[in-house]
Amino acid sequence: VLRHLLANQPVTALDARGLPYVPGPAPLDEVLAAMRRAEGIIIPMNTQAQNGAVGINLGAKGVIELELVASGELGELHHVRATYLQDWLLDPSFPLVWRLDRMQSGSGAHGDLNAHLIDAARWIAGEIDEVVGLSETFVKSRPLPAESSGLSGKGRAAARGPVTVDDATLFLARFRSGALGSFESTRFAAGRKNYNRIEVNGSKGSAVFNLERMNELELYKTSDADSARGFRTVLVTESSHPYIKAYWPPGHTIGYEHTFVNQAADLVTAIADQSELRPDFEDGLRCQEVLEAVARSAAERRWERVGLVPNAADAATSRVAEPAPRVPAGAGSRRRK
Amino acid sequence: VLRHLLANQPVTALDARGLPYVPGPAPLDEVLAAMRRAEGIIIPMNTQAQNGAVGINLGAKGVIELELVASGELGELHHVRATYLQDWLLDPSFPLVWRLDRMQSGSGAHGDLNAHLIDAARWIAGEIDEVVGLSETFVKSRPLPAESSGLSGKGRAAARGPVTVDDATLFLARFRSGALGSFESTRFAAGRKNYNRIEVNGSKGSAVFNLERMNELELYKTSDADSARGFRTVLVTESSHPYIKAYWPPGHTIGYEHTFVNQAADLVTAIADQSELRPDFEDGLRCQEVLEAVARSAAERRWERVGLVPNAADAATSRVAEPAPRVPAGAGSRRRK
Amino acid sequence: VLRHLLANQPVTALDARGLPYVPGPAPLDEVLAAMRRAEGIIIPMNTQAQNGAVGINLGAKGVIELELVASGELGELHHVRATYLQDWLLDPSFPLVWRLDRMQSGSGAHGDLNAHLIDAARWIAGEIDEVVGLSETFVKSRPLPAESSGLSGKGRAAARGPVTVDDATLFLARFRSGALGSFESTRFAAGRKNYNRIEVNGSKGSAVFNLERMNELELYKTSDADSARGFRTVLVTESSHPYIKAYWPPGHTIGYEHTFVNQAADLVTAIADQSELRPDFEDGLRCQEVLEAVARSAAERRWERVGLVPNAADAATSRVAEPAPRVPAGAGSRRRK
Amino acid sequence: VLRHLLANQPVTALDARGLPYVPGPAPLDEVLAAMRRAEGIIIPMNTQAQNGAVGINLGAKGVIELELVASGELGELHHVRATYLQDWLLDPSFPLVWRLDRMQSGSGAHGDLNAHLIDAARWIAGEIDEVVGLSETFVKSRPLPAESSGLSGKGRAAARGPVTVDDATLFLARFRSGALGSFESTRFAAGRKNYNRIEVNGSKGSAVFNLERMNELELYKTSDADSARGFRTVLVTESSHPYIKAYWPPGHTIGYEHTFVNQAADLVTAIADQSELRPDFEDGLRCQEVLEAVARSAAERRWERVGLVPNAADAATSRVAEPAPRVPAGAGSRRRK
Repeated sequence: VLRHLLANQPVTALDARGLPYVPGPAPLDEVLAAMRRAEGIIIPMNTQAQNGAVGINLGAKGVIELELVASGELGELHHVRATYLQDWLLDPSFPLVWRLDRMQSGSGAHGDLNAHLIDAARWIAGEIDEVVGLSETFVKSRPLPAESSGLSGKGRAAARGPVTVDDATLFLARFRSGALGSFESTRFAAGRKNYNRIEVNGSKGSAVFNLERMNELELYKTSDADSARGFRTVLVTESSHPYIKAYWPPGHTIGYEHTFVNQAADLVTAIADQSELRPDFEDGLRCQEVLEAVARSAAERRWERVGLVPNAADAATSRVAEPAPRVPAGAGSRRRK
Repeated sequence: VLRHLLANQPVTALDARGLPYVPGPAPLDEVLAAMRRAEGIIIPMNTQAQNGAVGINLGAKGVIELELVASGELGELHHVRATYLQDWLLDPSFPLVWRLDRMQSGSGAHGDLNAHLIDAARWIAGEIDEVVGLSETFVKSRPLPAESSGLSGKGRAAARGPVTVDDATLFLARFRSGALGSFESTRFAAGRKNYNRIEVNGSKGSAVFNLERMNELELYKTSDADSARGFRTVLVTESSHPYIKAYWPPGHTIGYEHTFVNQAADLVTAIADQSELRPDFEDGLRCQEVLEAVARSAAERRWERVGLVPNAADAATSRVAEPAPRVPAGAGSRRRK
Repeated sequence: VLRHLLANQPVTALDARGLPYVPGPAPLDEVLAAMRRAEGIIIPMNTQAQNGAVGINLGAKGVIELELVASGELGELHHVRATYLQDWLLDPSFPLVWRLDRMQSGSGAHGDLNAHLIDAARWIAGEIDEVVGLSETFVKSRPLPAESSGLSGKGRAAARGPVTVDDATLFLARFRSGALGSFESTRFAAGRKNYNRIEVNGSKGSAVFNLERMNELELYKTSDADSARGFRTVLVTESSHPYIKAYWPPGHTIGYEHTFVNQAADLVTAIADQSELRPDFEDGLRCQEVLEAVARSAAERRWERVGLVPNAADAATSRVAEPAPRVPAGAGSRRRK
Repeated sequence: VLRHLLANQPVTALDARGLPYVPGPAPLDEVLAAMRRAEGIIIPMNTQAQNGAVGINLGAKGVIELELVASGELGELHHVRATYLQDWLLDPSFPLVWRLDRMQSGSGAHGDLNAHLIDAARWIAGEIDEVVGLSETFVKSRPLPAESSGLSGKGRAAARGPVTVDDATLFLARFRSGALGSFESTRFAAGRKNYNRIEVNGSKGSAVFNLERMNELELYKTSDADSARGFRTVLVTESSHPYIKAYWPPGHTIGYEHTFVNQAADLVTAIADQSELRPDFEDGLRCQEVLEAVARSAAERRWERVGLVPNAADAATSRVAEPAPRVPAGAGSRRRK
């Protein structure tokens, strides 16, 4: 969604609020450059809303612990195994809500769920070079909704309409680092409600995060004694963990909404410290490039390089340098080097 | 704590705010009777603060799901197995914070943690008739604190003082219903942060709640087919579960603080509906009676009947009728029959 | 069962096979002394059979991993929390099999299940000084069996008989070391099939073993970094773990029967090495003393000291010295110091 | 491996023992036809040995429970998510054992581990139509072994040799039924020892099997009440489960070796009953076809149809009819319809 907005919009200035002012077409790299020049801080917004902006809440902040352990502690990464499983479309009589209309939502499970996985995976393992994927729509038409909100809805018996987005999108990936990625997002996994689960296997250990148990991190370290080695279930509520020290004593958990509170805290901290805020628009763009490469791959049934858009050479050239891996240095202080 | 306050205080009126006005000594049953007569609603407060009032947040609202399944669905109850395990006193150099001073806190793990277990157990399985227990203080003296807040603190090396409360209190119980209870609270269980875990075994099934995974309930039903019977890990975020429908879509969890939000919602609902609010002062008193019976049992090394306080016959006679089991009927509508 | 056999039997010799020859009544200490003098090795037998002999398979060999971590690695022990939960008596129409007849079985859940917990607990935490407990029989009479074997049976509709054993026995314990124990065995815990679960909390960490997942050990170490501390799920199939190196590669699990194979291996190894074999008859006796103290406590409704049998002063005096804690030194080589 | 053996071997007869007698080259369909004509029973052998024959123990018998629930109970299948994760090659100094030499082993993680996943997936979800995959060798050369056996080995410092097999192979698949498959096998997943985990999502529920907890099955049913719906952890030791009734009472688990015992039991039963035995040679061939299609896909970087081997038209034509899905009807009685 972001790319369509930006690709068809020039950027000659940023307005007083620090938002891009785009009177006409401009290459992507100019957009990014303008954003970087801007005084003030560009506020990433949140994909939970329909506006398609940059803040990818769950992907970035919900896996903060993964970032911690991934920054060197797991060694060289071999595997990223990411699934985002839900089941709210399993019932064929569930109505045709806006999320199932490509005109309104851009895509289905792919843009809604894989976006979180990709953002988190980039954070942890760096850039993705190439992908191969497939998409499927299991239920091709659904009853038109009488009304709907959020993930729920109620169908009318009579009229039906076509589902124009994917119910599930899977892809394999090769990271620039040499790591292999397996990604899967679906709305048809019975029993999985918000199963945003990422497993990372490195040369020194492994880590697993699952949003359904977001106060926990599973961690395995090869440096543990052979006879006492196993996945640790870490309850990430000690004051040594990021963010949580602003909440409750150990063992007192936080919930989904607090990932947004954390995001806001990062923003306020970045403003106060004049520090860089991540994810930023470039992170959003990189994520979008992967999403689009997967979409092309599924349509063309072939491997696709990320960023090599045939009709958008500007996009390719804008990726002059690899963005630095995000270095965790406390809430709100991840700086692009 | 409550009992000491009430037992030495008369109640002749309730003030404009609906709080008991207690100018001098009065029997407990008069206190309760006055509270029941009171116009308006008596606001249970929260044991998390130092005031020792009635609202026992975690016990009552955190196990709401247990209540649901316990109300008939599990059949006749045979076992209640309750543990509240923490480990913040494991380090002998942890300082002598107020919670370790009997004058300020009343008791240690017993009043702080068993109170939650007892309140939850009464909710689920009804009144407790008799108990036998033991208490232990593993670390008898600790450095005086330079400063402390909540569950953390920092000691001064030189001066030390005696720990005057229990580090752990365990007890066995017989419920009026015939069920057996096992209760254990400790601040010395390495690795357990807020392990308020209650397992209930009934003739038709079992249920387990653990505050460290407060968005889940484990549920076993004997009516499941023999070949497909097992503990279900229920993510209690469907709109059919109480409270949660006011929050997020399925799979989007809530945190510790929301148990207080739920408590406040119950209060507001009860005011709006003129309905009964539970837990009420009587629940607090009953809980306190069990706590005291256990304390007597540990001191006297014998079985103790709950409520039979030698020097407080009034307390005994005030228990004219068994309080009705709490019937779940949605937030804020549990009425004393 | 053992005590009754031994208490009414003298021991003047051991026969050629190394088994005690008991022509007439003798004090317990003479029995033990004779056994210790015996040339050859006394073969512990297995409580799974009806003979009531000494080898307590699950308690001793099934928790081998607990022994490992308990031998110093967990520091000073504060808590032993042991439950053995089954549910095969939940159905009131289950017939009156031999296990429910005190004349044949000695006791119910207590002797059958608590025996395993006690043996394991002694192994890990040393001797138990005193206990307080309760027993309950939830279903007082059952249909007489047409036939039965093992844990299954089939009732006849017409005739019924009284259940003369306990369905559940719970007790609290104080260990000589200062640790506190909580024990519970029941055949009425819906959904628990063979839930022999022991949790140990020490000053340096905690460990949990559950027979239903006998190839795993949960282990928590306070020495882990604060931000990466959690219970490790150790799959005990590395060659560094005892016994397993005789089986399969890592990750390839063993089953219930292999605990007996391990027991036999210990015996053969002890014969070959002329080394001591544990558990031995004294372990069996100590376990029996705890069982009996709990039974007295449940009957008398009071705390009981272990070993202080009113009518068996010989038993008391036989406990001259505390048996040494079992030192793990590889399969078959645990020597009584 | 099988295909290479068969493709270069004619089959004109079966010998007295029911084994194929292969004096010279013959087309694959003749081989299969000869095997089907054979009197007696063809004995599948076991891939654990180096002979590369047909019995795929873990894939077929270890997931017996998945088969049960998959046969209709889960409805129309949408997703098969299969991973076989190990970590024994994580150490770069691990020596170049025979499994890392393509001449001896055929392939690495792919043939060794994906073979199990594919066999199980076919059993559950039917034939696979097309695949796209990738392979990677993370450590390109290793020290030559002084000696090695099984999964262990010990390197010599000096001499090194090239690793000629894959360390990891991932692929996506489309099943003939419309289900989507995600497969991943690796020997570089730190902390995973024998993590043969298969998750199936269908229109009526989901099921998960993990060989590391082979006595359990996770099962989710959409028909459960909304407020009590969750993954059930089924301990598959009830007598209603297949095979287990020949072993122990409920809750008493079996181990890895018993999957071979079960396989032998199936064979003996099939001989006694003159019934069909599955998996048979055709199952082995179908599995091999998928393995080869994935290998071609990884080499050619494109989607590949299963069975369409350019230079082996005979193989294609031999798949005249889709093999019937295996119908569970008790051990040893799965008949090809």
